[in-house]
Amino acid sequence: MLAGFDIGGTNARCLLVDDDGSVVANVRRSSAGSGPELVQSIVALVRELEAANGVKVEAIGLGVAGLAHRSGTIRYSPNLPDLLEFPLGQEVESVLGVPVLVANDANAGAWAEGRIGAGRGIDDFVFVALGTGIGIGVVANGTLVAGANGFGGEAGHMVIDADGPRHVTGQRGPWEYFASGTALGRLGREAAARGSFPRGVELAGSVADITGFHVTEALRSADPDASVVFDEFCREVARGIANLVLILDPERIVLGGGVSAVGEPLRDGVQLWLGRLLLGADHRPTAEVVLAELGPDAGALGAALLAADLIS
Amino acid sequence: MLAGFDIGGTNARCLLVDDDGSVVANVRRSSAGSGPELVQSIVALVRELEAANGVKVEAIGLGVAGLAHRSGTIRYSPNLPDLLEFPLGQEVESVLGVPVLVANDANAGAWAEGRIGAGRGIDDFVFVALGTGIGIGVVANGTLVAGANGFGGEAGHMVIDADGPRHVTGQRGPWEYFASGTALGRLGREAAARGSFPRGVELAGSVADITGFHVTEALRSADPDASVVFDEFCREVARGIANLVLILDPERIVLGGGVSAVGEPLRDGVQLWLGRLLLGADHRPTAEVVLAELGPDAGALGAALLAADLIS
Repeated sequence: MLAGFDIGGTNARCLLVDDDGSVVANVRRSSAGSGPELVQSIVALVRELEAANGVKVEAIGLGVAGLAHRSGTIRYSPNLPDLLEFPLGQEVESVLGVPVLVANDANAGAWAEGRIGAGRGIDDFVFVALGTGIGIGVVANGTLVAGANGFGGEAGHMVIDADGPRHVTGQRGPWEYFASGTALGRLGREAAARGSFPRGVELAGSVADITGFHVTEALRSADPDASVVFDEFCREVARGIANLVLILDPERIVLGGGVSAVGEPLRDGVQLWLGRLLLGADHRPTAEVVLAELGPDAGALGAALLAADLIS
Repeated sequence: MLAGFDIGGTNARCLLVDDDGSVVANVRRSSAGSGPELVQSIVALVRELEAANGVKVEAIGLGVAGLAHRSGTIRYSPNLPDLLEFPLGQEVESVLGVPVLVANDANAGAWAEGRIGAGRGIDDFVFVALGTGIGIGVVANGTLVAGANGFGGEAGHMVIDADGPRHVTGQRGPWEYFASGTALGRLGREAAARGSFPRGVELAGSVADITGFHVTEALRSADPDASVVFDEFCREVARGIANLVLILDPERIVLGGGVSAVGEPLRDGVQLWLGRLLLGADHRPTAEVVLAELGPDAGALGAALLAADLIS
């Protein structure tokens, strides 16, 4: 039996997972606090789940946003500032005495989609998690491209507009400035400020309060202004994906993360713009854009499945 | 015995290579002409080399710039317009009756550097060929990331400045506009036009005639203006590499292609700028930048070594 965690800034999701990827239990718990406190929460949760389900956890995977080192140390996580340079994996392993693997959450999500989700049977694909920021996971030749340290997939920080606007990271024009869930809200506010998105103002109460949520809400009710905003968003998503396709030539792009709940309009819009933006489209197939299948469980599931390799 | 070709717009380089990567023979021949003419040249050269060296070639690798499909078809090669959609690999295979592999030249170069060059023993590295344009080859988890079609590594076309200048490809602001050997010449001409590179004008005869060659010539004679131009060039190279490091987290960057003949000033400059430009450098090691070891033979050597897998 495996345990997989997806550790966010406020909550941790924990799955108890069979070797074949079946989910036996699925719980959420606060992840707030210091590194040692998080270790205690994880340990308590694993023991609780073992007792409640009458099983023994043999390996644990921890998915974390940011620079999660192969060694188990969280070098830097934007969501978990208290974990700066904290040896999370090593600490959990030393208390529980079973192998623990630490991975970037989007890398873990990619692995899950590849094993039992939308990348099943595909040797070369890219998982793109569109949330507050953008994280990706690359699968090439059937293996996860986590990189030398485990820091691969930080494509949200890829600069695509070097003279563009300054992002919170200090960079100018990184992809996630234009194409994250946060960016979708900004596009909505910009349209509303021009008077081109009255439905958004109605839903949010004011221009300044419009977020990506309101854009997708308006889109669901077939508001034509929201369609214009969302089309622009899909173009921005596709701009970064076009770069990734040039570098990696994946067969498929799997769209996940919170924004992917929008569903078909996102898939369709990104596929359309990718076809327009990809250089050499006359001489190459455009990678197929599909929606992720595992929803918010992908990170925890993938962490568990990656951990399975520690004991196989 | 293996034969490896690197087929450029005017010449083809052909190596006869032992299974361990030792070069037995190294010849160059014209590659001009139509697809069928190129097939004839390749076939004649292989037979000639077999006769001259008393060996039998068991597999052939053909390295070609551009979109070289896994199937053997050259979908599009900027250097070989006559080969548009030509089934080069299949045709050579049907005449010679031995397995033929077609690969992108930079991918082939990466594989050679990984097996017997500057990426030896490194599971995760990126080979960057700086020539007329930019091609890369990615090795991850010890395997070549050629992609679903074999089109991986077209990172020269990665857009890094979306509002930037228009490139010959029609794109705005792709990496190779700023950081190829061609771009080095442009930087030299721009400096000379400002009156900041008199040595370049002296060497080339006029501002308009300055190429990358004159910049590197002036650099060799320790011209301080050339150093300024070259520093700017190294920053542009590092901007694209910073994106690749975020996506792939390689342990090492191997600089190859014609521009890499500059040697240490290039390596040093790119390493320096990469450290400055890479996001999160406080929490991650900067990938080590090294020079390629195999020089202009890398593509043909790698094609031969990739072809070896067809018969192993």
